[in-house]
Amino acid sequence: MDNIGFVGLGLMGLPMAANLIKAGHRLAVYNRSPEKARPLIEQGARLAQRPADVVSEGGVVFTMVGDDRALEEVTIGAEGFGPRLGKDGIHVCMATVSPDIARRLTAWHAQHGSHYVAAPVFGRPPAAAAAKLWILCAGAPGPRARVQPLLLALGQGIFDFGDDPGAANVVKVAGNFLISCIIEGLAEALTVGEKSGIDRQAMADCYVKALFPCPVYQNYAAMVVAGGAKDVGFALRLGLKDNDLVLAAADKAVVPMPFASVLHDRFVSAVARGRGDADWTAIVANVAEDAGQIAK
Amino acid sequence: MDNIGFVGLGLMGLPMAANLIKAGHRLAVYNRSPEKARPLIEQGARLAQRPADVVSEGGVVFTMVGDDRALEEVTIGAEGFGPRLGKDGIHVCMATVSPDIARRLTAWHAQHGSHYVAAPVFGRPPAAAAAKLWILCAGAPGPRARVQPLLLALGQGIFDFGDDPGAANVVKVAGNFLISCIIEGLAEALTVGEKSGIDRQAMADCYVKALFPCPVYQNYAAMVVAGGAKDVGFALRLGLKDNDLVLAAADKAVVPMPFASVLHDRFVSAVARGRGDADWTAIVANVAEDAGQIAK
Amino acid sequence: MDNIGFVGLGLMGLPMAANLIKAGHRLAVYNRSPEKARPLIEQGARLAQRPADVVSEGGVVFTMVGDDRALEEVTIGAEGFGPRLGKDGIHVCMATVSPDIARRLTAWHAQHGSHYVAAPVFGRPPAAAAAKLWILCAGAPGPRARVQPLLLALGQGIFDFGDDPGAANVVKVAGNFLISCIIEGLAEALTVGEKSGIDRQAMADCYVKALFPCPVYQNYAAMVVAGGAKDVGFALRLGLKDNDLVLAAADKAVVPMPFASVLHDRFVSAVARGRGDADWTAIVANVAEDAGQIAK
Amino acid sequence: MDNIGFVGLGLMGLPMAANLIKAGHRLAVYNRSPEKARPLIEQGARLAQRPADVVSEGGVVFTMVGDDRALEEVTIGAEGFGPRLGKDGIHVCMATVSPDIARRLTAWHAQHGSHYVAAPVFGRPPAAAAAKLWILCAGAPGPRARVQPLLLALGQGIFDFGDDPGAANVVKVAGNFLISCIIEGLAEALTVGEKSGIDRQAMADCYVKALFPCPVYQNYAAMVVAGGAKDVGFALRLGLKDNDLVLAAADKAVVPMPFASVLHDRFVSAVARGRGDADWTAIVANVAEDAGQIAK
Repeated sequence: MDNIGFVGLGLMGLPMAANLIKAGHRLAVYNRSPEKARPLIEQGARLAQRPADVVSEGGVVFTMVGDDRALEEVTIGAEGFGPRLGKDGIHVCMATVSPDIARRLTAWHAQHGSHYVAAPVFGRPPAAAAAKLWILCAGAPGPRARVQPLLLALGQGIFDFGDDPGAANVVKVAGNFLISCIIEGLAEALTVGEKSGIDRQAMADCYVKALFPCPVYQNYAAMVVAGGAKDVGFALRLGLKDNDLVLAAADKAVVPMPFASVLHDRFVSAVARGRGDADWTAIVANVAEDAGQIAK
Repeated sequence: MDNIGFVGLGLMGLPMAANLIKAGHRLAVYNRSPEKARPLIEQGARLAQRPADVVSEGGVVFTMVGDDRALEEVTIGAEGFGPRLGKDGIHVCMATVSPDIARRLTAWHAQHGSHYVAAPVFGRPPAAAAAKLWILCAGAPGPRARVQPLLLALGQGIFDFGDDPGAANVVKVAGNFLISCIIEGLAEALTVGEKSGIDRQAMADCYVKALFPCPVYQNYAAMVVAGGAKDVGFALRLGLKDNDLVLAAADKAVVPMPFASVLHDRFVSAVARGRGDADWTAIVANVAEDAGQIAK
Repeated sequence: MDNIGFVGLGLMGLPMAANLIKAGHRLAVYNRSPEKARPLIEQGARLAQRPADVVSEGGVVFTMVGDDRALEEVTIGAEGFGPRLGKDGIHVCMATVSPDIARRLTAWHAQHGSHYVAAPVFGRPPAAAAAKLWILCAGAPGPRARVQPLLLALGQGIFDFGDDPGAANVVKVAGNFLISCIIEGLAEALTVGEKSGIDRQAMADCYVKALFPCPVYQNYAAMVVAGGAKDVGFALRLGLKDNDLVLAAADKAVVPMPFASVLHDRFVSAVARGRGDADWTAIVANVAEDAGQIAK
Repeated sequence: MDNIGFVGLGLMGLPMAANLIKAGHRLAVYNRSPEKARPLIEQGARLAQRPADVVSEGGVVFTMVGDDRALEEVTIGAEGFGPRLGKDGIHVCMATVSPDIARRLTAWHAQHGSHYVAAPVFGRPPAAAAAKLWILCAGAPGPRARVQPLLLALGQGIFDFGDDPGAANVVKVAGNFLISCIIEGLAEALTVGEKSGIDRQAMADCYVKALFPCPVYQNYAAMVVAGGAKDVGFALRLGLKDNDLVLAAADKAVVPMPFASVLHDRFVSAVARGRGDADWTAIVANVAEDAGQIAK
């Protein structure tokens, strides 16, 4: 019988937990707002009152929470599940957190006989629901091998980055950086085009077809054409946070990142102008304003 | 019987001219170094001694030359073909030149009864050989319609950007800008990864598969992993020139482009460090050196 | 008897010409709007109807006009004074023009037996009126020596930059760049302070007294505190032009200038937001808006 | 009789403590390497074995230590003087630390009946020895007034920034930012000049005389001309740290600082190229290398 916990049932965590149930696993789940767990309860999950109650010794806990601080609290806070994991227990952290906390929790688990596996993902809620996430995995070889069948229930592929859990987080935040490079680059290009009398849509169509015919690029191009996504897929404030994480990793590795620095200033200015809660593609509005346009 | 001239038989022009012959057209060709024309002569082309000799009144001339100055010379220089085009003649310029010269030559042709069609392309020599170029087309509607069948012999698709020939050039140089954004972004990301202990190749594989599964991205990712392309597909000096063109278009449109400014400084520094004749992906070596690494 | 012409009687040229008269020289003057010349006529100057009429063979002409194009017109345009200068005539250009035109006019004069001396200045109208300008001088040694007594009537000191007239212009535009670095730097610092609850004026007072107790810094600090100068001492559009000149000099010398690139984007954005005709310290308003403040 | 402690006897702290003795105060001093204290002992100071031994209840302790961590240790670490200060004791922190720790220690002292006064300084060791420092002071009004006579023994002037101790630190790190703007700006300007054939020294002389005739600018101009200072007045690694502090303050205040971002990348690259222990003007060598020159 399984001994699997899942902590954090947000836009991503909920469909991921559902996929684990669908794959035949028995889950205990925890969320700060317990009513979010209802669909999972109906599918047979057990609702825990505290993070500590999702698992017993030697089990596996997945976490999908918002940031470093939330992760720390559910793991080693007063009601955290950490001390329960005990010998051979595994903590699989799938959220985008800092390489630093990944390394700190790894050390904590090592001292307590348990293990930390980093498994951040690429993909948005629909991909999570379709079990089509891409999973970046790093951590000690044994635990990594043991959780692999579980991860396969969540995604279409696993990329392996070795023993240092921080590595998976570096790859993840650098990946978000690459996406934001595309947003900024397209926004600059389309704004020059538009102010030169060229239709944004026609220009984007050309690039998407002739240069970058892949879904992620296409989706972001559509949002840039529209002046930013109307629905919040990923909050700008979180985009700034992830950019800060990649800059922190760069500082630690002693690498200058001029594009990431430009993006930092861009995200900060967007927050300053009141766009922190909009989708992160709202930086497109700042590009427009800097060119003297009224943001759409 | 056709009355078609082709001026400029470099890495791109040569296979393009060959495709026009293959499609059944009769060509007169001109190149500064005439020996380059030999394969075309063998396929039936006529070799002209001067640009002026490639065409007679009412014909069509394709140009695929290196820069604004060369274009000006072969068109309206002492031996230029411009005055020969006469009434209803069409000049199809397929090189990446400035929006400014596109507009100036358009005006010149208008005064002489002939027409200018801008038709810059995306695609490298193998795509030119396979008639798989993507063609960005702009100019007066009549001439544009008349040359369309000829262009279809060269590419897999035509994007239409209206009556202002300068527009096609803006879209083209902005497209090159988007590619250089990807080179710089990837170089920064992989350098942070590498100095954090992560394999460049593994990191790039993940991004190419999970985020950007399209050939252009894949090709450039491979070059960035290698620290820059060994073969010169597109000279860094020309990359700087195109970046200057996009910045000039931005200045004219009064649009700040912070990413293009960073790239300007990057290309200039690469030229200063002796990489002007290398492939433009050699900026990856500058990213490495800025991070204290020895360039590969 | 003197044979001295002065072309360009704007905010700077007028008091400079007056100082030459005051020093005992006889002047012929030209200005596009001749009514500006009235005070000089009252002091004994002769009003010329065309640039060509300000001088005869072997004389000296000072020019203080707005930009490269105006300089070219008054010198070698249809009514230009250039052909009149003849053997041993000297053209002293005191405006901030490009190193390029300095070199082109130098060549022109060399072909016509006359000479070009570059003598751009630091100082604003009050310094011009008080004969307290600082003069940067470059050109062939003989002519440079001959005009030195004339220049001493205009300024408090002359800096010598050798035989290449372009050099004086590089030093001049790079000096304006240094001033704009101070404007931008202070604007960023005071904005962080202000949004942290610190009084802008108190902060600027500290820097001016403890770090940079010199008039230029003090004057600009006062303008930055105020959110930009109310009176237009130097139009932002011209600030952008000078920044473009320093970037062009840097491109030619193959030197990346990241600060100048940031300033380029800053000036362009200020023009895009409608501040082209304001004082160049109006970039301070852009810094404020980027931080989410309402510009003062 | 005085009850004054002084913790941290480095290049700055030593002459400052000596000036307090010279002004007639009795001092107890602590330094990690106690032999540094010898000259002060000879002048009558008492050597303490632990930070806690420099003061008794109600006294005043000056700290001049290297960074946030050292400050925390000597104040509230196992042997810290904090608990000894007791009712009405005052901690005067003169080092350049983060606004954050200033606020945290302020809260700590408030809970223990003592007070925190921030008093960072502008000036290098010779100014410290001559009691010519400029002192930025912030903290609760009563304690601030009480230590004012002591501070006057150390500097030539005090700038008052109100009740929030963090404010003085923001002003201080932003001041260092302004100095680094001058270093970078001059380095870019002189490099363009040099590669255009103009003498660095002549160019700097002109700017220092005509635009910025003040000692700080003059001193830095001399270092930039020389390609960076030979003696380490302020380590580049600390310059990077202070830049990080100003960026952190900017992040907190939600202000983008593009110049500070460029400087961040500059300092990081200089550390990556092995210049972390050189004087912070060694960034001039990076400017040279980016322009293809061999650093001096």
